[in-house]
Amino acid sequence: MKGVDHLAHERNKTEFDVDAMKIAWAGSRHAFELSDRMARLVASDPAFQKDGRTRLGRKELFKNTLRKAAHAWKRILELRLTEEEAGWLRNFVDEPSFTDLHWGMFIPAIKGQGTDEQQQKWLPLAYKMQIIGCYAQTELGHGSNVQGLETTATFDPETDEFVIHSPTLTSSKWWPGGLGKVSTHAIVYARLITNGQEHGVHGFIVQLRSLDDHMPLPGITIGDIGMKFGNGAYNTMDNGVLTFDHIRIPRNQMLMRVLQVTREGKCVQSNVPRQLIYGTMVFVRQTIVADASTALSRAVCIATRYSAVRRQFGSQDGGMETQVIDYKTQQSRLFPLLASAYAFRFVGEWLKWLYTDVTQRLQANDFSTLPEAHACTAGLKSLTTTATADAIEECRKLCGGHGYLCASGLPELFAVYAPACTYEGDNVVLLLQVARFLMKTVSQLGSGKKPVGTTAYLGRVQDLLQCCCDVQTAEDWLKPSVVLEAFEARSARMCVARAQNLSKFENPEDGFAELSADLVEAAVAHCQLIVVSKRKEEHDLTPAMARDESDHHNKDEGFIDKLQQDIPGKGVNQQLQNLCYIYALNLLHKYRGDFLSTGCITPKQASLANDQLRSLYSQIRPNAIALVDAFNYTDHYLGSVLGRYDGNVYPKLYEEAWKDPLNDSVVPDGYHEYVHPMLKQQLRNARL
Amino acid sequence: MKGVDHLAHERNKTEFDVDAMKIAWAGSRHAFELSDRMARLVASDPAFQKDGRTRLGRKELFKNTLRKAAHAWKRILELRLTEEEAGWLRNFVDEPSFTDLHWGMFIPAIKGQGTDEQQQKWLPLAYKMQIIGCYAQTELGHGSNVQGLETTATFDPETDEFVIHSPTLTSSKWWPGGLGKVSTHAIVYARLITNGQEHGVHGFIVQLRSLDDHMPLPGITIGDIGMKFGNGAYNTMDNGVLTFDHIRIPRNQMLMRVLQVTREGKCVQSNVPRQLIYGTMVFVRQTIVADASTALSRAVCIATRYSAVRRQFGSQDGGMETQVIDYKTQQSRLFPLLASAYAFRFVGEWLKWLYTDVTQRLQANDFSTLPEAHACTAGLKSLTTTATADAIEECRKLCGGHGYLCASGLPELFAVYAPACTYEGDNVVLLLQVARFLMKTVSQLGSGKKPVGTTAYLGRVQDLLQCCCDVQTAEDWLKPSVVLEAFEARSARMCVARAQNLSKFENPEDGFAELSADLVEAAVAHCQLIVVSKRKEEHDLTPAMARDESDHHNKDEGFIDKLQQDIPGKGVNQQLQNLCYIYALNLLHKYRGDFLSTGCITPKQASLANDQLRSLYSQIRPNAIALVDAFNYTDHYLGSVLGRYDGNVYPKLYEEAWKDPLNDSVVPDGYHEYVHPMLKQQLRNARL
Repeated sequence: MKGVDHLAHERNKTEFDVDAMKIAWAGSRHAFELSDRMARLVASDPAFQKDGRTRLGRKELFKNTLRKAAHAWKRILELRLTEEEAGWLRNFVDEPSFTDLHWGMFIPAIKGQGTDEQQQKWLPLAYKMQIIGCYAQTELGHGSNVQGLETTATFDPETDEFVIHSPTLTSSKWWPGGLGKVSTHAIVYARLITNGQEHGVHGFIVQLRSLDDHMPLPGITIGDIGMKFGNGAYNTMDNGVLTFDHIRIPRNQMLMRVLQVTREGKCVQSNVPRQLIYGTMVFVRQTIVADASTALSRAVCIATRYSAVRRQFGSQDGGMETQVIDYKTQQSRLFPLLASAYAFRFVGEWLKWLYTDVTQRLQANDFSTLPEAHACTAGLKSLTTTATADAIEECRKLCGGHGYLCASGLPELFAVYAPACTYEGDNVVLLLQVARFLMKTVSQLGSGKKPVGTTAYLGRVQDLLQCCCDVQTAEDWLKPSVVLEAFEARSARMCVARAQNLSKFENPEDGFAELSADLVEAAVAHCQLIVVSKRKEEHDLTPAMARDESDHHNKDEGFIDKLQQDIPGKGVNQQLQNLCYIYALNLLHKYRGDFLSTGCITPKQASLANDQLRSLYSQIRPNAIALVDAFNYTDHYLGSVLGRYDGNVYPKLYEEAWKDPLNDSVVPDGYHEYVHPMLKQQLRNARL
Repeated sequence: MKGVDHLAHERNKTEFDVDAMKIAWAGSRHAFELSDRMARLVASDPAFQKDGRTRLGRKELFKNTLRKAAHAWKRILELRLTEEEAGWLRNFVDEPSFTDLHWGMFIPAIKGQGTDEQQQKWLPLAYKMQIIGCYAQTELGHGSNVQGLETTATFDPETDEFVIHSPTLTSSKWWPGGLGKVSTHAIVYARLITNGQEHGVHGFIVQLRSLDDHMPLPGITIGDIGMKFGNGAYNTMDNGVLTFDHIRIPRNQMLMRVLQVTREGKCVQSNVPRQLIYGTMVFVRQTIVADASTALSRAVCIATRYSAVRRQFGSQDGGMETQVIDYKTQQSRLFPLLASAYAFRFVGEWLKWLYTDVTQRLQANDFSTLPEAHACTAGLKSLTTTATADAIEECRKLCGGHGYLCASGLPELFAVYAPACTYEGDNVVLLLQVARFLMKTVSQLGSGKKPVGTTAYLGRVQDLLQCCCDVQTAEDWLKPSVVLEAFEARSARMCVARAQNLSKFENPEDGFAELSADLVEAAVAHCQLIVVSKRKEEHDLTPAMARDESDHHNKDEGFIDKLQQDIPGKGVNQQLQNLCYIYALNLLHKYRGDFLSTGCITPKQASLANDQLRSLYSQIRPNAIALVDAFNYTDHYLGSVLGRYDGNVYPKLYEEAWKDPLNDSVVPDGYHEYVHPMLKQQLRNARL
């Protein structure tokens, strides 16, 4: 079967340069080559083989992850990989593990919140993995509300130590990844108490386990919190529970970059701005948006390839049945997800620029764009993760019954992705933050304060309240300015309407609480606008799409911006343009209630958008396989029999089935005790 | 802690008679008492204990299911339970197993499709479980399109036998539950071939395994198809793969109630109408709708109780934080699901009546209502299962991070429910069938043929195209006739618009294919109308709600009908009324694009509906816990630490964590091989 390609007939239809698209997707030739090299390195290493992991029991699964983590670290050292290369390698190992938290949370927390001396002491140990760290913030009773954490860190001036303590059951640290079984250290968040006074929640470096025998230190209780959603998935991670019984740590293990506790127990603010922490948030959320596009594109790749392999109905004369990808019902569910994958990819690239921009401003003590950047990243985190989780499950359904098999890869992809809707800010809580920022922005419009960045369009609110969509034919929807104006008008009108409703309440907080569900809808509208086309410069009031061609910098990575660039490669621009319109017009169709109720478009125009969508689906159809090939995923990384590059689905599904432990014996364990007595009607006497 | 009730303060707020509501939910006092008795029987039997099942490996899990199935059968025999009681007992064991298919598919298939002689031979064996059967229809390459099945049954007149054969890999039977490891027999669907001619797909009783040693008979290959989505969940079931290498069975093992094959190999239609098969479909789908309300209500019960236990934010002065159930964002997501659970419950009860009605008509050779009944049940199956799967996942999200733990019960509930969207008709394929029926109904409106049953409103299409919603205040939305007319007008106008678009195509089939996504939307609108208020009598053109009070029979079990009945018990009617309006107005809000684009309501009226919804949430709030208590689920059946009746969540979560196998040892297996060398930088020499 070597060399068979059941999808060759599909690939032959492609109307664009797939290699060029691979680079556009990756962001640059450098990024493409790097990730391609690392993906192949992992895929070709038998030690990183991952099929079968959904069949393992918890202990076996976890031990297997420890093995892979050690092997990955060994390879990283042997090959002297750069930090960037090592990150890609870990990514392609594709298994949540304690190292994610060590590299992704423990080290960044020390870098962000530790003093220079603290960094000098702890970072070299962490970089060499001589200590392994995790991030212990959430507690059994406390998640979103960080200020409600109960763990205490009480300064004892007698001994110059902090006493870390868990005063209640609900104060048990709960969820931190890497905590349960592996980490030797943790950043523990606790209420700082000195001289009997509380000073808010701060981070402390606490050693948890002996570096000799790995036993928890006296007074520390640690365990794993148990099974989580799905097969394999996050069960490879030792999310943990942790309680402290008056544990003492030296004073210099409080992270003191922003607030210092002196030898006498006095709190002294440093001259480092507290806002720095928001810079970190922007960074973390940018990576979450990038991860959303990755997870979504994997699911879409599987569902698209299988939809081209699977045939059902449509054969009257005994010939081949119709490929399910040719059904409009399948296309209208699948292609918007394909478009979303690309959209999230490009808005993620743009967020990288935003992070750089924010960082540079912070270094220059310019905090002006921070609230907007914070709201923008919060909203995009929420929007992209919710959409991605839903989309993975939709892709599973698009694969019919076989999508329910672990061999499809989709159940694990869903289960492993689902927590993204909750961690780093619950998605609804985040949208409320966006809504609060939008309401504030609207309330200040009269004051002459110009809204910046992604909210700049609200500066043109008077125009947007009055503008009138002039679409008269389906093709009229293929103008960027028309689409953009519709999304801007919808969001602006929803914001203004909510602000007016809020103003009817005597107490604004009561109004915010009462109308919160409506406010969330406005926040969603605003965030969708950002994805469709974000603003490049924060004081620029011109719509991005209306700008001069010469005005395009490489920080333009939003979806509509992207398609206006002259991306090299035959047909690449055309495909991106089609995907962009599918993304936007599908949203317009799905949320037509918003557009219609605010009068931004007429029912006739909504119907024309829907007609145009169908036409776009036909244009994308011959390129669908190539568009998912452009993600450049190895079969190892995809981990799906249905999504195999060669489309050789059925023989491999059949082969895979026999690997189940239940097939170890023809007659199943339990037959003699339980089934045989039933068949022979000897059950009454059986001991069960 | 015995006797603690952390939710007592919530239960004290209740404004209605919970015991009366329990009976309304159950359908009758008899149904309540029966299910209550069986639930307690199962919950109190240590052999049926189920916590911990998500931690078991596949083999252990499956053996455990065999044990429970045998124990259940033993108890059924010992207690001499009726068929109804036995069904409830198996339901509360709450674990998919081979017995589901034996009782739910194998026996009904023989009853429905077997001749009297066949029934006399096979049913006694099956009823005593001296044989165990499954239902082998779908194949590796064939699901929805039953006519595309490849397995052949060729009549051999020489020996008076059928030769059952799997000619290709894709013809392997794939998915049948109970097949992989347990069943001794199967109903096998295969293409009937006699005298070289094909006669379509028919069912055959085939013995698979020896009744002595359980080995597959010669020429038969059987195995389990491997891991499926989720922990526990359907992995307790041996969904199987099966291939035949020219297996011979006697001629009298073809199910011949409808079509007979004579000794000479001639096909003879019996005088039993083929339409009987649709009666079975109505029955099966009715049970699926009932199951949807059960699954949904379990998830809602968990999320509602936990939302009352969980507190987050809102404490400025160090007091208690706010219960998350008091946030409007939580209410606006949770309460519509609570309302949906009740709505699906009552429409499920109505479907029972529909099945009885259809059966009686079939017996009288009246097939007139069959197409409508078929479309109606297809649509309700699709609507309720899609909504329920989404709702379970939404309930999981409503439980925040802890919902992701298997201990919450929600991951397993989701994974075990998800296939309902695919089995017994893929939900999108079913909606297309509904749409086809609707388009046919609309096209016949001019011919004088009156639409019946749930499509009767289309007979008033002229009125519905012109009617004008006269809502002027939020309270105006609390009139049944107003709500009903809005839903009828929306559905009718969507149907007519689609029919008009279809008529523009030369070839109707091309049009149907091209516009299929739009047609699905119309089908959804129609099905939502059915749930809001279905028609009672098929030739009755009067809206159900406009009928005289005296006109209420006990077959009125739809949602709006239900609330018009004088249900005994203080406040019960009021609560059902509120839930009904929440169900309807939430749909109206969510699908306002439909209502607005068809001009059924104005943006202002949509906004008023939304205002009314918020007010209804406030009215439901104090009764929320009691409304989920009314489902009468035992803690055993719920299987959720978050949903415990006593609300004692945190101590039990903590306790549960320690049961994970990873906590068997303090230092995890694998530490010495993989973690220690990393910490000690001895990895280069380590053998991994």
